[in-house]
Amino acid sequence: MLVAEIFAVGTEILLGDIVNSNAQFLSRQLAQLGIPVYGHTAVGDNHKRLLTALEYAYTKADVVISSGGLGPTLDDITKEVAAEYFGTTLEIHEPSMKAIRQRFESLDRELPQNAERNALIPVGPTPLPNHFGSAPGVLMEKDGKILILLPGPPHEMEPMFIKYAVPFLRQKTDKIFVSRTLKIVSIGETAVEEALRDLIDAQGNPTIAPYAKLGEVHLRLTASAETEAAANALIEPVAKEIHCRLGANIYGEDEDELEDAVVKLLQSKSCKLALAESCTGGHLTSLLVSVPGVSEVLNEAVVAYSNDAKTARLNVGRDQWGDEILAKYGAVSAETARAMAKGAAEFSDADYGLSTTGIAGPDGGTPDKPVGLVWIGLHKKGGETVSYPLKFKGSRNTIRNLAAKNALDVLRRELIFN
Amino acid sequence: MLVAEIFAVGTEILLGDIVNSNAQFLSRQLAQLGIPVYGHTAVGDNHKRLLTALEYAYTKADVVISSGGLGPTLDDITKEVAAEYFGTTLEIHEPSMKAIRQRFESLDRELPQNAERNALIPVGPTPLPNHFGSAPGVLMEKDGKILILLPGPPHEMEPMFIKYAVPFLRQKTDKIFVSRTLKIVSIGETAVEEALRDLIDAQGNPTIAPYAKLGEVHLRLTASAETEAAANALIEPVAKEIHCRLGANIYGEDEDELEDAVVKLLQSKSCKLALAESCTGGHLTSLLVSVPGVSEVLNEAVVAYSNDAKTARLNVGRDQWGDEILAKYGAVSAETARAMAKGAAEFSDADYGLSTTGIAGPDGGTPDKPVGLVWIGLHKKGGETVSYPLKFKGSRNTIRNLAAKNALDVLRRELIFN
Repeated sequence: MLVAEIFAVGTEILLGDIVNSNAQFLSRQLAQLGIPVYGHTAVGDNHKRLLTALEYAYTKADVVISSGGLGPTLDDITKEVAAEYFGTTLEIHEPSMKAIRQRFESLDRELPQNAERNALIPVGPTPLPNHFGSAPGVLMEKDGKILILLPGPPHEMEPMFIKYAVPFLRQKTDKIFVSRTLKIVSIGETAVEEALRDLIDAQGNPTIAPYAKLGEVHLRLTASAETEAAANALIEPVAKEIHCRLGANIYGEDEDELEDAVVKLLQSKSCKLALAESCTGGHLTSLLVSVPGVSEVLNEAVVAYSNDAKTARLNVGRDQWGDEILAKYGAVSAETARAMAKGAAEFSDADYGLSTTGIAGPDGGTPDKPVGLVWIGLHKKGGETVSYPLKFKGSRNTIRNLAAKNALDVLRRELIFN
Repeated sequence: MLVAEIFAVGTEILLGDIVNSNAQFLSRQLAQLGIPVYGHTAVGDNHKRLLTALEYAYTKADVVISSGGLGPTLDDITKEVAAEYFGTTLEIHEPSMKAIRQRFESLDRELPQNAERNALIPVGPTPLPNHFGSAPGVLMEKDGKILILLPGPPHEMEPMFIKYAVPFLRQKTDKIFVSRTLKIVSIGETAVEEALRDLIDAQGNPTIAPYAKLGEVHLRLTASAETEAAANALIEPVAKEIHCRLGANIYGEDEDELEDAVVKLLQSKSCKLALAESCTGGHLTSLLVSVPGVSEVLNEAVVAYSNDAKTARLNVGRDQWGDEILAKYGAVSAETARAMAKGAAEFSDADYGLSTTGIAGPDGGTPDKPVGLVWIGLHKKGGETVSYPLKFKGSRNTIRNLAAKNALDVLRRELIFN
C-alpha cells in the first residue's frame, strides 16, 4: 500500500501570507484514491532545508506530492532540489518551451527574459502540461519513490493533479474509493445530524461525514470496494434513504452548486428571470452568471443600491393606499422587496422576479432593523408576489453571501413546488 | 536567534476535512515577533509518528508550537508524546481540574466522564489557562528546547497564544519585525522584478519579496530593528523609491483592496458612478459593494446580459451612420462597450459610466472574438467615451474576475490622471 506525504514549498506560507489550502485539496483527493496521508510539510524556498525535508519524507512515505516553487524566478528551486535528490539534472524541455511561447503570443505579451526557467525539467520524466499557466509539472518515479511536483496557484495545480496525477495514482492502488457528496441548504448541521442520527451511528462502508459550510451542509458518503460499480452500489441505498429524509433540502450532489440547480430548473421550465438587488449588490447575479448557459434564462439584473434607482429602474412606487412605499416602509421592508421583484420582472417581461434588500452593515442598523436583516422578494408572472424576512450574523460580506444563497433557495423551492 | 517549527496534530487535517489555518495564524504571529519559521508539519493522532516528527523538528528548530490533540478522548495524545519526549510523565493538575469543573457548572452541563484527561499535564511546567474551552495549554522548556502545546479550535488557541505565549517569546527575542505590502495592478510579476531588479538584488534590511496574485502583484518589504520606529525608518526610503518607479501601478498598501482605492477616489472627488456589466455579470458591482460607504458614490448598476436589456436598459442604439450598434459590431465590441458605459451614466446622471462586455466562455468564442476577449468602456460626463480591449486566459470565473479587476483599474487611472 502506498503512503503519501504532502509538501508545500514557499516562504509565503511560512510567513502566513497564504493558507496552505493546496494541502487540503490534495488530502481530499488522496483520501478518495484510498492513499493514506501521514503528514503535511511546508518548507521555504531554501535549497538545503527542502532537500533535507525530502529525504526525511521518504523515510515515511512512498509518494511525495509537492506544490509551489516551479516558477521562473531564482527563488523557485523545487525542480533543482528534486533533480539533485533523484541524481539527475535539469534541461530545457522544448515542447514545454514552445507551449510557453504560444501562451505569451496568444496573450499578446512579450516573452519575459526568465521564461526559459519555466521549461527547465529534470532529465528523464515527461512534464505534466499546465493548461492554466506557464510552469509545467513533473512526475518522477525511481526505486519505488514517486515524486509529483505541481505549480502553487490552485487554479493551475488542481486541474493538473486531476488530469495527470489521479490516473497515474489510481493504477498504483488496488482499492477504489468512491465519494458522493449530498449538498444541503437552509437547514443547519445539527438538524441534519438529528435527522440522520441512526444512519450516522451505524455507519460503516460507506462512511457518512457532515461538513458545515457557509449557509450549507455537505454530507460526504465514501465507500471502498474493488470496483467503482461495487462502491457505487454500496453508496446508492444510503444516499436514497438520505434523499427520502431530507427531500428538497438537498439541492444537488458533488460539483453542483446552488446556482447550477436554479439555472437547471429555470431551463427545464423554460422560464426567464429578472433580478433586483440592493444589499447583495451584484453578488446574487454574479453567482448565477458563473453558470455557463445562464443567458438562456436570465433577462437582466438591476443593482438598485440607491432609492432613486429603486424608483427609476424598478418602479418602486406607491402601495394600495397611495402612499410612497420607500417613504412609508423604508428601503429594507417586505413591501419594498415585493415591489422590487415585481418591477424587475415586469420591465423585462420575465416569468420570475427575485429581489434582495437588507442591511449588510457594518453601519446602518437600528433596533427595529438590525444589521443582518434581509428581505427577499419573489414575483411570479400572473401570480403572487411574496417576501420573506431573514436574519444573519457576521461580516458585511458574510451577510451578503448568505442573503444571495437564501434568495437562490427561495426561487429554487418555488420552481420545485409550484 | 530562535527558529520555530509549527505543528498541527489531527487526523482531520490529513484527511482534508479542515484546512490548517492555525499554521497561518501562528506564522503571522511569529513573523511579527521576528522569529523565523523554518517549517510547518501536520501529523495524525499517532503516537510513534508524532514522536518521530518532534525529534526531527528539534534538529531544525528551538521552538515547536503545536496545536491540536489536547482533548479528553483517547486519540488525543499530544501531551503524552510531549511528556515522553521530555522524559517526564503526566499528572492531574488540580487547579486546571477545578477550572474545568467550574466551566461545566456555569454552562449547566454535566461533567463528562473523560474530563479528567483534560487536566493531565506533564509534571513540571505550569499549564496555560484556556479561557474559551476545557483543555489547558502547556509551555515546556528544557535544554534550550521550547515546546508550546495549544488546543486545536482557533477560538481557544488564538487568545491563549496571544495572552500567554507571546509575552514569553517576546522576552526571548531582541528584535522587532515590521512589514509593509505595496499592491500593484495591471503589470505582471516579471515586469515588476525588471523595474526593481537592482533593488531586489541589493536587498538586505528591508527584504523585498514579490508575490503574484490573480491580476495583481504584491511586494512585501520587511525590516527588523530594535524598535518599530527604527524598522519603519528602514522601510520608508525603499518604499518611496518603489513608489517613484512604479507610480500609479501601485494602488494601495497592506489591507487596501483595489475596490477600496476606487471608492476612496470617487469619494474624494465627490463623483458618482453607474455600472453596466455584461460578461462580468454582477461581479464588478459586487466588488465595489463590498466596500462600506459605497452608497455615497454608486448610483446603480445594470447587468445587461441579453441584447434586449442592452437596448432597453442602457439605450445601446445606433452609431453615427445610423446603423444598429449591436447588429453591426456585435455585443462584444468597442462600440457596444462605449454605448453601455454612456447609457448607464446618462440614465442615472452619474459622473462616470463603466462597462464590461466580453466572452467569458467556456463556449461562444470565434477566431475573431476568442474566449477571454473583454472590452471595457468608460464614459465621463461631458467628456469622452473610450474603450479598451483586453485578453485573458483561464476559466469562466478567472476571466470574469480579471475583467472586473481591470475595469476597476481603468476607472482608477482615469480618476488619478484626469
